Amino acid sequence: MAESQNKRDLAYARTKINFDVKDMTNFLHGGEANVEQRRYIIDLIAKDPVFNKDDWGWLNHTDAVKRGIAMSTRLAEIKMEHDLNDLDFATMMEAIDDTLPIVLHNGAFIPVITSQGTEEQIEKWIPPAEKFQIIGCYAQTELGHGSNLSQLETTATFVKETDEWEINSTSFTAAKWWIGGLGALCTHAVVQARIFIEGKDYGAHVFVVPLRSLDDHKPFPGIEIGDIGPKAYNGFNKMDNGFARFNKYRIPRENMLMRFSKVSKEGVYTKPPHSKLAYGSMVLLRSVLIKQMALYLSRAVTVSTRYLTVRRQFNNPTSRNDSDLNPGLETQVINYPMVQNRLFPMIAQSYALFAAGSVMMEMYIGLMTGLSSGNIGALAEVHAMSSALKSYCTTFAVAGVEESRKLMGGHGFSYFTGIAHLFASTVPSNTYEGDNYVLTQQMARYLLKEVKTARTNPDQVTPYSKYLLLGLNKSAFARSTCSVALPEDWLNPAVQLAAFEHRCARLAYELSDAVEQGGLDTANPKTWSDHNIECYRISHAHAQYVMVLWFIQAVRDASNPETDVERRAEPSSIKVLERLSNLHALHTIQTNLADFVEDGYFSPAQCQSLRAQVKNIVASLADEAVGLVDAFDHPDFLLNSALGATDGDAYKRLWDKAQSEPLNRRQVCDGYEEYIRPLLKKHGEFKL
Amino acid sequence: MAESQNKRDLAYARTKINFDVKDMTNFLHGGEANVEQRRYIIDLIAKDPVFNKDDWGWLNHTDAVKRGIAMSTRLAEIKMEHDLNDLDFATMMEAIDDTLPIVLHNGAFIPVITSQGTEEQIEKWIPPAEKFQIIGCYAQTELGHGSNLSQLETTATFVKETDEWEINSTSFTAAKWWIGGLGALCTHAVVQARIFIEGKDYGAHVFVVPLRSLDDHKPFPGIEIGDIGPKAYNGFNKMDNGFARFNKYRIPRENMLMRFSKVSKEGVYTKPPHSKLAYGSMVLLRSVLIKQMALYLSRAVTVSTRYLTVRRQFNNPTSRNDSDLNPGLETQVINYPMVQNRLFPMIAQSYALFAAGSVMMEMYIGLMTGLSSGNIGALAEVHAMSSALKSYCTTFAVAGVEESRKLMGGHGFSYFTGIAHLFASTVPSNTYEGDNYVLTQQMARYLLKEVKTARTNPDQVTPYSKYLLLGLNKSAFARSTCSVALPEDWLNPAVQLAAFEHRCARLAYELSDAVEQGGLDTANPKTWSDHNIECYRISHAHAQYVMVLWFIQAVRDASNPETDVERRAEPSSIKVLERLSNLHALHTIQTNLADFVEDGYFSPAQCQSLRAQVKNIVASLADEAVGLVDAFDHPDFLLNSALGATDGDAYKRLWDKAQSEPLNRRQVCDGYEEYIRPLLKKHGEFKL
Repeated sequence: MAESQNKRDLAYARTKINFDVKDMTNFLHGGEANVEQRRYIIDLIAKDPVFNKDDWGWLNHTDAVKRGIAMSTRLAEIKMEHDLNDLDFATMMEAIDDTLPIVLHNGAFIPVITSQGTEEQIEKWIPPAEKFQIIGCYAQTELGHGSNLSQLETTATFVKETDEWEINSTSFTAAKWWIGGLGALCTHAVVQARIFIEGKDYGAHVFVVPLRSLDDHKPFPGIEIGDIGPKAYNGFNKMDNGFARFNKYRIPRENMLMRFSKVSKEGVYTKPPHSKLAYGSMVLLRSVLIKQMALYLSRAVTVSTRYLTVRRQFNNPTSRNDSDLNPGLETQVINYPMVQNRLFPMIAQSYALFAAGSVMMEMYIGLMTGLSSGNIGALAEVHAMSSALKSYCTTFAVAGVEESRKLMGGHGFSYFTGIAHLFASTVPSNTYEGDNYVLTQQMARYLLKEVKTARTNPDQVTPYSKYLLLGLNKSAFARSTCSVALPEDWLNPAVQLAAFEHRCARLAYELSDAVEQGGLDTANPKTWSDHNIECYRISHAHAQYVMVLWFIQAVRDASNPETDVERRAEPSSIKVLERLSNLHALHTIQTNLADFVEDGYFSPAQCQSLRAQVKNIVASLADEAVGLVDAFDHPDFLLNSALGATDGDAYKRLWDKAQSEPLNRRQVCDGYEEYIRPLLKKHGEFKL
Repeated sequence: MAESQNKRDLAYARTKINFDVKDMTNFLHGGEANVEQRRYIIDLIAKDPVFNKDDWGWLNHTDAVKRGIAMSTRLAEIKMEHDLNDLDFATMMEAIDDTLPIVLHNGAFIPVITSQGTEEQIEKWIPPAEKFQIIGCYAQTELGHGSNLSQLETTATFVKETDEWEINSTSFTAAKWWIGGLGALCTHAVVQARIFIEGKDYGAHVFVVPLRSLDDHKPFPGIEIGDIGPKAYNGFNKMDNGFARFNKYRIPRENMLMRFSKVSKEGVYTKPPHSKLAYGSMVLLRSVLIKQMALYLSRAVTVSTRYLTVRRQFNNPTSRNDSDLNPGLETQVINYPMVQNRLFPMIAQSYALFAAGSVMMEMYIGLMTGLSSGNIGALAEVHAMSSALKSYCTTFAVAGVEESRKLMGGHGFSYFTGIAHLFASTVPSNTYEGDNYVLTQQMARYLLKEVKTARTNPDQVTPYSKYLLLGLNKSAFARSTCSVALPEDWLNPAVQLAAFEHRCARLAYELSDAVEQGGLDTANPKTWSDHNIECYRISHAHAQYVMVLWFIQAVRDASNPETDVERRAEPSSIKVLERLSNLHALHTIQTNLADFVEDGYFSPAQCQSLRAQVKNIVASLADEAVGLVDAFDHPDFLLNSALGATDGDAYKRLWDKAQSEPLNRRQVCDGYEEYIRPLLKKHGEFKL
């Protein structure tokens, strides 16, 4: 077959890019060395047949778990063979592209023991865990409880006589549930249970609990254990999320992790010194999610940008028509302004997520450095920030993945886009590691404290809350308006940030006032949960503000000769990055326009010129879109997409994929003799 | 086991409902007789083992198609056994709850032949089709073309010598694709192909094409045929969406459907009298979708409302705490204002969809009555209306289904919520039957014509476009503001409608002005597609306006003694319906607030009082929510949800469902000997 029009279209689009894709890739991934290493790791996985994805579309949960186990053990071997650092391991998981029964072993089982175990406990459990002589999971969530740790129904009762704990599922709803790795693979679990000593409840603590025999993998007597079944959208289908019920199951006293809380063999309980250390791991998990969202959303827009470049439909004149080049052909779908205005803002969001992921990780590292020297000063802010960003970023990035799929129209509903799998495996991020709505209370609480600080010690407000100072003079603040006069004023980062700051300040003070007034109303006092809608608003507003700020800063740093070379970019790249940053800021404003206009900060004319400016920037990116997604550097193995492969050969690949449907191995379908023929012949034969 | 707390919680919630659920059900479904008939039909399906859903979560596409064939043939038998009208058949499909290989036989194959075939053609094909001696599908979409019919690449070339058509897939991308029923089941297809007679292209026409032998079901020589493989989210997995390539495949000349266009055996082509008749079926398909969205969204909120009533988490004081009743228990999640403010507006939207579905169907029937007597006056408006509503309603309803799932937090990610299946099978509605973005151009075009009419013949503007008259006096219109002074003013339907009318008028004139000015700019003339973003805005704004209007009217009619008894409701129901109507209107405004405030129509103070009023109405529905979803009357068979069943026994059902996971049939998982054991023993045995 001659080279397809699809391939020609994508190749031609690449000739029109006005920046160096390689330079942009280096900028995104933090330098050439990182790019090379990421490619090396992904290739390592791509070459290994156990990680082949060709049949994933047909695996049901039961079969997929077996595959997940095969992949898990191979992953363990690779981990032992290669001395992988955290970044490499993360890249490997990115390449594997699905969660596996083994991931909580290194992701939670080992870290929990390491951070909460005594020296002896670490000595006992970690070496065999690192050699995979035991494989562990992390059992917290129960059928009846997820978020509320203090009400867990699994108990550990101290049995002084035998120096043991008796682990018990006190009721039906006490069953551990959703535990990854528990359903089939793991030999051990770290179990959260409330301890009782001589009838007294000391709250939730963690225990190392052997689950299955190391001889034959059978569950130990006293433990009822299994898999909880398939998940929504076939998501997490290789993961053996499991349940467990304990029936007065005994473990030695020493299996309680005792670095902080301790229980002596006499049953004397010693309290932990301070309890804030555990926040570190929550901050880490949420910070990692920001970076992951950058990788996920960028994958989705890569697929849709490429496909929409090669898809042609209708011969409509557009402001950017290529009919001069291909007079006989229909218009490339990506040339429709409606499509560009849905797609390009998501490309800009992907770039903003790369920047935010880096800053958030730096904040986490800074926090941990502080904590290790006993400095908990940054904890409150970093915890609030990671919560607010986790909530906001996972919400819009996952929605963007699905939007990318829908942008592809009819063919977008095929499994072979690769995007359905991506959505199915990322959408639980909206409800795990803190539900995205519940989580916004953290930032709101933090900002309420900052409001108090602003009023009492204005110079002690942290940099990211400085905008609160704007609101101290109420009447001046109420009169303040946006300074935009000419359309190009919107392109001034200071103007953009001022708008976000104004909005955040307004929402923060409104919440603060409402909380104060609500408490004063003695007839009908408002409780905290009555303010949760406003918490959600201010938390997302703050997250959008820092996202915009960080992207602006990253672009500014990229042209600063004093910046590390890994984070610098060439002038031609900077030019496009500035447009992306403007689009990200202004599109975010436009999407939340009511917040900026309902107090009169924007005028009607400014709203009109904002919309026009967004359309202008979008149009200016038309020649860059393919380059911008190429720059994400997602190889075909990772995309696993018939429609979004690097060569653009979408129709050919979709055809080839369809041929692999097992139904097509037979000329006449299964069920013909049993069902179809009897129906056709029921009222006698029809003769053509 | 004693009655669970779950069951007690839902039962208690039912004691607090302030209206008669049965009365509300009758109102929603158009009277008691309809309710009874719907229950009868659903029960008929529920009792038939082939429609059992217990193992659906584990069927991959290949297995699911076989199931789909078994279900299809049973459906055909039921259809022949019972004399079902269209409504009953629709209810049956609702109960079956998945699309099947056979649905296009009655849904498209027969109607297309009936409407486009001659008397002889109908006589030839319809009797065997009705007896299922032949089974047909509808083959329009191709690999390279969906929306753009005129560029289809399948050709039918007239061969005068043999009085035949030669059907040919001219290129790789001409392959028919996505055709439901084609992959495995069907013996025939109605095929869209462009006809060529002596080299001249006469555009797309339809042909009855035999695909598979009635003797042995083998595809005929000259046709390459198969299944296109799995779809996103396992959606449509029982459907054999198929492909076909024709290699100079011959069929008799008479197989072209010739009611309108004709080709004689001499090869003389006769044009159809008028081509607008085909719009009728598009209007029908889109109108039916509105009603379906009511059924789908109401199912999703039924599940989440019930589950959130029995789920308890944290002991937080809320304005509606039941701690006096159950002092030891945590707070029911549904009592959190954040949850209510996400969930209750979707209940209101479901009610609004029921109303809109009925009106839209009446409009369709009115249109067809008119068309049958040659009156095409209503066509333009009804076509535009069905397009605008299809786009808007399928967008928010499907998003609401997914939002309902996420509202359920962690357990919402289980397949056993029943909602993942619902989302997977409804989300393609956003891209089929006209992509939801492309489709909005219809309403925009229609309104632009109405703007012209308003300017030239203001008394000829149709009732739904009357708001355009507001904008005729530009300066008066620009000064007009919302009349709300007191919070309760928001509850006046006239105030609500005035706001929607003002917004629609503004957007319509802005679009009209932009189109006119864009054309005048000779240096850089704007083309139609440059206005598509604004088309989307005005189309959705208009759809929201009529949705609000129709719901207000339905509630008003419900208390009018002159209304048919089937559409009336008791005063206690009306009271709640009025609150739902207010919530629907005001929440829709709040969600699109920028549109109402950016031109100064709402003042800052009005925005604040609007938000407060929405919160008030939401809070006022707390005792009614369970009753409002019970009133939808979705039986457990239909919901197929562990978390949302009528008795509320969520945890017990989730547990039982997990036990049915095939992995749990064995104590030690498949893969232990092959993968796990070698890994555990690799570095020697660990002794506990």
